[in-house]
Amino acid sequence: MLFCILLEIRPPHFLAPADQLSDSDRSGSCSSQKMADNWILTVTARTPTNIAVIKYWGKRDEKLILPVNDSISVTLDPDHLCTTTTVAVSPSFDKDRIWLNGEEISLSSGRFQSCLREIRARAGDVEDETKGIKISKKDWEKLHVHIASYNNFPTAAGLASSAAGLACLVYSLAKLMNVNEDNSRLSSIARQGSGSACRSLYGGFVKWIMGKEEKGGDSIAVQIADEKHWDDLVIIIAVVSSRQKETSSTSGMRDTVETSLLLQHRAKEVVPRRIIKMEEAIKNRDFESFAQLTCADSNQFHAVCLDTYPPIFYMNDTSHRIISIVEKWNRSKGIPQVAYTFDAGPNAVLIARNREVAADLLQRLLFYFPPNSDTNLNSYLLGDKSILKDIGVEEAKDIEGLPAPPELKATQKYRGDVSYFICTRPGSGPTLLSDESHALLDPATGLPK
Amino acid sequence: MLFCILLEIRPPHFLAPADQLSDSDRSGSCSSQKMADNWILTVTARTPTNIAVIKYWGKRDEKLILPVNDSISVTLDPDHLCTTTTVAVSPSFDKDRIWLNGEEISLSSGRFQSCLREIRARAGDVEDETKGIKISKKDWEKLHVHIASYNNFPTAAGLASSAAGLACLVYSLAKLMNVNEDNSRLSSIARQGSGSACRSLYGGFVKWIMGKEEKGGDSIAVQIADEKHWDDLVIIIAVVSSRQKETSSTSGMRDTVETSLLLQHRAKEVVPRRIIKMEEAIKNRDFESFAQLTCADSNQFHAVCLDTYPPIFYMNDTSHRIISIVEKWNRSKGIPQVAYTFDAGPNAVLIARNREVAADLLQRLLFYFPPNSDTNLNSYLLGDKSILKDIGVEEAKDIEGLPAPPELKATQKYRGDVSYFICTRPGSGPTLLSDESHALLDPATGLPK
Repeated sequence: MLFCILLEIRPPHFLAPADQLSDSDRSGSCSSQKMADNWILTVTARTPTNIAVIKYWGKRDEKLILPVNDSISVTLDPDHLCTTTTVAVSPSFDKDRIWLNGEEISLSSGRFQSCLREIRARAGDVEDETKGIKISKKDWEKLHVHIASYNNFPTAAGLASSAAGLACLVYSLAKLMNVNEDNSRLSSIARQGSGSACRSLYGGFVKWIMGKEEKGGDSIAVQIADEKHWDDLVIIIAVVSSRQKETSSTSGMRDTVETSLLLQHRAKEVVPRRIIKMEEAIKNRDFESFAQLTCADSNQFHAVCLDTYPPIFYMNDTSHRIISIVEKWNRSKGIPQVAYTFDAGPNAVLIARNREVAADLLQRLLFYFPPNSDTNLNSYLLGDKSILKDIGVEEAKDIEGLPAPPELKATQKYRGDVSYFICTRPGSGPTLLSDESHALLDPATGLPK
Repeated sequence: MLFCILLEIRPPHFLAPADQLSDSDRSGSCSSQKMADNWILTVTARTPTNIAVIKYWGKRDEKLILPVNDSISVTLDPDHLCTTTTVAVSPSFDKDRIWLNGEEISLSSGRFQSCLREIRARAGDVEDETKGIKISKKDWEKLHVHIASYNNFPTAAGLASSAAGLACLVYSLAKLMNVNEDNSRLSSIARQGSGSACRSLYGGFVKWIMGKEEKGGDSIAVQIADEKHWDDLVIIIAVVSSRQKETSSTSGMRDTVETSLLLQHRAKEVVPRRIIKMEEAIKNRDFESFAQLTCADSNQFHAVCLDTYPPIFYMNDTSHRIISIVEKWNRSKGIPQVAYTFDAGPNAVLIARNREVAADLLQRLLFYFPPNSDTNLNSYLLGDKSILKDIGVEEAKDIEGLPAPPELKATQKYRGDVSYFICTRPGSGPTLLSDESHALLDPATGLPK
C-alpha cells in the first residue's frame, strides 16, 4: 500500500519518515493532497456479491449475527456484480461519514458501528518511512474515516447489495488500517455488519461455518474451492418486477426464528447433512447433486418463510413460473441442466451447467419473458452480453422470433414480468484497486467525487 | 325409506311381501316404475363440503388412504356448497354406472371401487312387506347401481368437490343398501374414496382421527361440535382466477411424503399439539386461538408443499394479497377478526368471527378485487347474498364507491383477480332428500333426468 504524505502534517507523529510498503497484499490506491494543516489517505477496493446455495436464514444471536446453521455460497463475478468502496482517513475529518451511491447515509446503525469498532480495535501500525508517515495503533481510535460505496448493479433489486457492501467496507478499512488478519478473520467482522457479507471475502465457493463459541469468533467464512475449480458454470439472474413491498431479511428471519415450528428442524437436522453433500458436490464438480441440493434448499428456505407468522412471501407468480420452466426442462433432459435459487426477493438466480446450456436457458427465458416494446436490448441483458450471439439475438426484435421450447406445451408469454437479465459466472474475491481513477472520494477533499 | 314394488319382479326373492320401513334415519326418496320385467329403487341425499382448519397432507398408506396426522375441519352450509347424489338399484342394470354433473364418467378408479366394495360388503337385508320387496344381503353383490351426482358449486374451482362427492356417494349407497353402521363407520369407507370426504359425514366441527390400525378401521371422523355450537361464524370464500394448472392433491401429497424433509416433523411434532389446542378453541369458541391456529396451519401446509421436490405452489399472488389484507387488518384491530385458510389451490377461505366482521371483510375484498365491468353482481357474490345489504351494495357500480380500508395504505386495485365470492357459514351434515323432485335419476329409466 502506498502512503503519500503532505507537507504539513498533524499530529506530530505523522511526520515520521515514510517508506513505500512492499506487502504484496497491500497495493491499493493511495492519494494525498495538500490541505490546510492536513492530508488524506485513501484505499479503494472492490468486493463481489454472493448467492447462497445452502441458505442462511435465522440467527441464534441477533447482535453478533451468529446463524442457526452453516451456509454455502457461490461468489459472483465482480465484473458484473460488485461493490466498490473508497475509505479515507485524515486528521481533518471531524466525524465518520458514509456515502452510498453518492448519497450520504447515516452511519449510526449498529451494523456499521460494529464493523468500525472491530476493525479499529485490530488496526496496526502504519509506517511509511519514505513519505514520513507513522500511525500507531492507538491513533486509529482518534482518527475519523470517510467511506464512499458504489454498487455496479441496482441496489434495491434484492441482489445481496448489503453482503458486497459490508464486505467491502470491512476489507477496505482493514487494508487502510493495516489490520494484520487473514480474510477468514475479516469475514468474522463483516459478518457483524451483514451475515452473508462474510461469504464475500472469498471468491469461488465459500462456506460460512456457524461456529460454536458464544462470542462468535469461530463463526467465519472459509473457501471450499476457488472460481477456477469449476469454471464451466454460467449464471443467469432474472431480476423480476415486483409490485409488492418485501419484508427485509433482518426482520423476516427474526420472525421466522420466533414463530416457525419448522426452522429448528431444518437448522439442526436437514442443513448439516446438506452441507456435507454440497461440499462433496462442489469438490467433485457433480452438477446433478449440486443442482438438486441448491433447488431443494432454496425451496426449503422459502418454506420456512411461509411457516413464519405472519407468513413471508418472497417469491411471486413470476418466480414460480421460472421454477416451472426449469423443472420441466430438467425433467425432459433426464438430468438437471440448471439449478435455481431465490434469496429474500422474487429474483431468480439460475446456474447452468455450462455455456451451451446457459444459452438454451436464456433462449427459454427470453421466449417467455420478452421485454416491453420500449426496452432496449442493451438494458435487458446486463453482464456478459456475448451470450446473445450464441442464440442469434442481435436486437430486441429478434426475441420475438425465438422458437417455443419443445418440452413445454404452454406458449403464453409474460411480457414485462422480468425487468432485465444479468449473465455472469462464479468470480473472484475482494481486490484492491490501485488505479486512482477508481477512487470514489476526491483525494483533495475526502468527499465524493 | 320407502320401497315401491312393481308388478313384475325378478329374481323371485324380490317377490317377497313388502312393508314400509319406519327407521327414522332412512327416509329418502324412493321411486318405482313399471318396466319390462323390472323395477328401480332410488335414494337421494345431499352432503356438505368441508374446509380443513388443521390440514390433512400426506398418506401413510396410499391404498387405504390413511393420513400421517389428524385433521380438523369446518363443514360448510350445504345450502351453498354441497353435492346431491341419487343412487338407484335395479335388476335391469347390467353394470355399475356414474354420472357427474350430467356427464357419464368412468367408475373404474380404485377410489370408486373401494367405496362400492366396502358398502356392498356391509349391505343389509331390505324388506318391505307392504310392497313385497325382500332383498337379502347376498343379493347386493349381484345387483348393479346407477349413481348421479351434482355439485351446486363449480367442480373445478378447487372447493373440495371430491370430499362432498365421495361422502355423498357412500352415504346414499349406505342408505339404499340399508348399511347398519353409524356415520363414523361410514366415514371410514368414504375416506377410502377421498381422504377428506370422511369429514363430510358430519356437520359443524369435525376431527378425522388418523388411527393406528394397519387396516385403517380406526381412521374415522368424529364430530367435535355441531354447527349450532358456534353459529356466529361467517365464511367468505374468494374463488381466485388462476392461469396455472394445479398439481392434483393426490399426486402432490405423494410427492411431499416422498421428498419433503419437513413433513414428518410437522406430522409428528407440530400437528398433534395443534389438534389439542384447536379442539379446545372450538369447544370454548375462542376465536383468537382458532384464527391463530387456522392461519398458521394453512401456512405450514403450503410450506411443506414448497419443501416438496419439485416444489408445489398452490397459492398465487392474489392469495398472498388476500393474506396480507387480512393480516394487516387483524394487526390493526389487536386481536384477530378473520382467519384464512387455503386448500390445494389459490382460493381463500376466510372465516370471520361474526356477521359484522364478515360485512367489513367483504367490503375490503370488494374494494381491492372489484369485478370486471361486464360482471353481474348476482354472479359475483354467491351463497348468502343478504350480506351485500349490510355494506350498502345493491348493484355492481356501488362497489366502485366503497371507501378504502383505513388500516391499509395501498389502494391499488386488482380488478378481475377474483372470479367470485361465496358467503356461507358452518353447516349441517348429510341429509336424505325425500322429495322426488330432487332426484337426479329418472325413476322410469334409471338414467339422468
